Amino acid sequence: MPELRQNRFTKEWVIVATERAKRPEELAVKKETKEMPHYSPKCPFCPGNEAMAPPEVLRIPDDGAWKVRVVPNKFAALAREGELTRKIERSKRTMNGVGIHDVFVDTPDHALTTALLPDEQVTDILSSYLLRFKQVSADPRVAHVTIFKNHGVSAGTSLEHPHSQMIATPVISSHVRGRLHEALRHYDEFGECIFCTVLGEELEEGSRVVVEGKQFVAFEPFASSSPFATHIFPRRHMASFGDINQEEIQDLAAVLKSVLAKLYFGLENPDFNYTIRTAPAESAGVPYYHWYLSVIPRLTRVAGFELGSGMFINTVLPEAAAEFLRNVKAEKPAAVAG
Amino acid sequence: MPELRQNRFTKEWVIVATERAKRPEELAVKKETKEMPHYSPKCPFCPGNEAMAPPEVLRIPDDGAWKVRVVPNKFAALAREGELTRKIERSKRTMNGVGIHDVFVDTPDHALTTALLPDEQVTDILSSYLLRFKQVSADPRVAHVTIFKNHGVSAGTSLEHPHSQMIATPVISSHVRGRLHEALRHYDEFGECIFCTVLGEELEEGSRVVVEGKQFVAFEPFASSSPFATHIFPRRHMASFGDINQEEIQDLAAVLKSVLAKLYFGLENPDFNYTIRTAPAESAGVPYYHWYLSVIPRLTRVAGFELGSGMFINTVLPEAAAEFLRNVKAEKPAAVAG
Repeated sequence: MPELRQNRFTKEWVIVATERAKRPEELAVKKETKEMPHYSPKCPFCPGNEAMAPPEVLRIPDDGAWKVRVVPNKFAALAREGELTRKIERSKRTMNGVGIHDVFVDTPDHALTTALLPDEQVTDILSSYLLRFKQVSADPRVAHVTIFKNHGVSAGTSLEHPHSQMIATPVISSHVRGRLHEALRHYDEFGECIFCTVLGEELEEGSRVVVEGKQFVAFEPFASSSPFATHIFPRRHMASFGDINQEEIQDLAAVLKSVLAKLYFGLENPDFNYTIRTAPAESAGVPYYHWYLSVIPRLTRVAGFELGSGMFINTVLPEAAAEFLRNVKAEKPAAVAG
Repeated sequence: MPELRQNRFTKEWVIVATERAKRPEELAVKKETKEMPHYSPKCPFCPGNEAMAPPEVLRIPDDGAWKVRVVPNKFAALAREGELTRKIERSKRTMNGVGIHDVFVDTPDHALTTALLPDEQVTDILSSYLLRFKQVSADPRVAHVTIFKNHGVSAGTSLEHPHSQMIATPVISSHVRGRLHEALRHYDEFGECIFCTVLGEELEEGSRVVVEGKQFVAFEPFASSSPFATHIFPRRHMASFGDINQEEIQDLAAVLKSVLAKLYFGLENPDFNYTIRTAPAESAGVPYYHWYLSVIPRLTRVAGFELGSGMFINTVLPEAAAEFLRNVKAEKPAAVAG
């Protein structure tokens, strides 16, 4: 019989449809293997083509060259300049679309997805996230910052060169408000951070844990809304991503890289998103919220039931997904490594 | 400059990114035109193949044959039989997956999508929705009913034969609870149904209206989260779809058909979902909620920003989408009709 499981952070119910269940490996999407060049003359993110992108706002330097570069998004969703104004007209509420939309060029190499990068390069990517996060959070127009990566067409990008993005908005979305509100309710009732509690239970039970780092733990959420969605939690209580320290960044890099490599080798380089779910600046120090990174492989499609009800149907048992990922040897076979 | 608009029912902000804006017609996805047969020998939904599907639970008869047939979903997300039990274990909340998952075979014709069906056939489809809605709502295990249609691969189906679905769940999702809660807050503050108010304003302003029927109105929501998402509201205040009357069903059929035909002819048969957003049975008579039908063409992809923040970026101005749809002549050219 299928099972309904409740997401412990949003209170949303998820249908784990074991009757429809597939073996994890059945979800891998066979793709044409496309040999990617390490440099593409038309790519605005490749070294030497820097002038094709807007002027750089940050770089992690590398002896005259760069390891990571951050530029304003050329097709920004929000305008960088301008004052914030609000308009109220009958039932309509609008604000002008002021905010910051950056692109992180994850690596100079056009062909290397995060799963194949050295841990040190992933550390540099995360360090650049942190630097930009702190910089834009200081802008009084910014209420919330979302950092994310889209990998592959199903995940919403057609740009090949590995990159991630940051959008700083002048509002806190009701989605984020809802998560904070649920966490606060739990804190008010039990005097504890629900995220800390869940992490403790996951470590004790073990069946959904994928990777254990010194400071970070990756696990499949109990009420995962889609196959192989993976949470990476800091062990230390922190509401804001801005509070991560240098040692933790290195550990997060290793754990994230390990999760992405397991997906890459186990499920044939699936399209995926990841996103950092942090408290907004105004709640940076609260005892009830806990930031984390969420990796969402795009193996299935949202259909009318999900759009209508807000509930999701997951056809892979989170415990089976975790076991599958634990067993993936996330390395190139020796013969191919180079 | 882009604009932030607030969804008046969920309070979620949407970025209307006019800088990235596309002309509506640019979103049409060119597809290989595939000549579909009117009958397929392997299709479980074609007349004559009834034995390939589970035993029928409802039919709209047609002189020995049928116009619409309803069968249990062979790959049901929930189990039809069984008692509802709830389990609470530390932070984990589960229920067994009891519920009803039906498939509506929209027409005996394998090749005719809703946009091309006669209005009378659409009336029969909606009548079958209503019959099943009332039947399953009477089941004490059922808390909420979602009726929806998936058309095309991007909308989550690979089955060609036109069909729709109903999933009756033993819980009310937190998504649905949230909509009810926001509507109740508005009612408590202003003493009015926010949906009735918005409908009145849309009719006065006119710029987002697509089709006006006698009992139903189709319009592009002010804070539409994706291009060409269209709401169809009943003019009469009703919280539950179960309260629709026969005359209204006929008008809804004509308006829905008109919207789908405009999408079909204007945007080259896009993949789409539609869903009926009704109050749950326990709130069937409330003065603050108002059911409606939502049509969601699947022209863009959800990416990391949406998954992380819950906010959407819409690259088509709702007013431009409405104007475009108003101008689509939703008929086959005379030379092709037949």
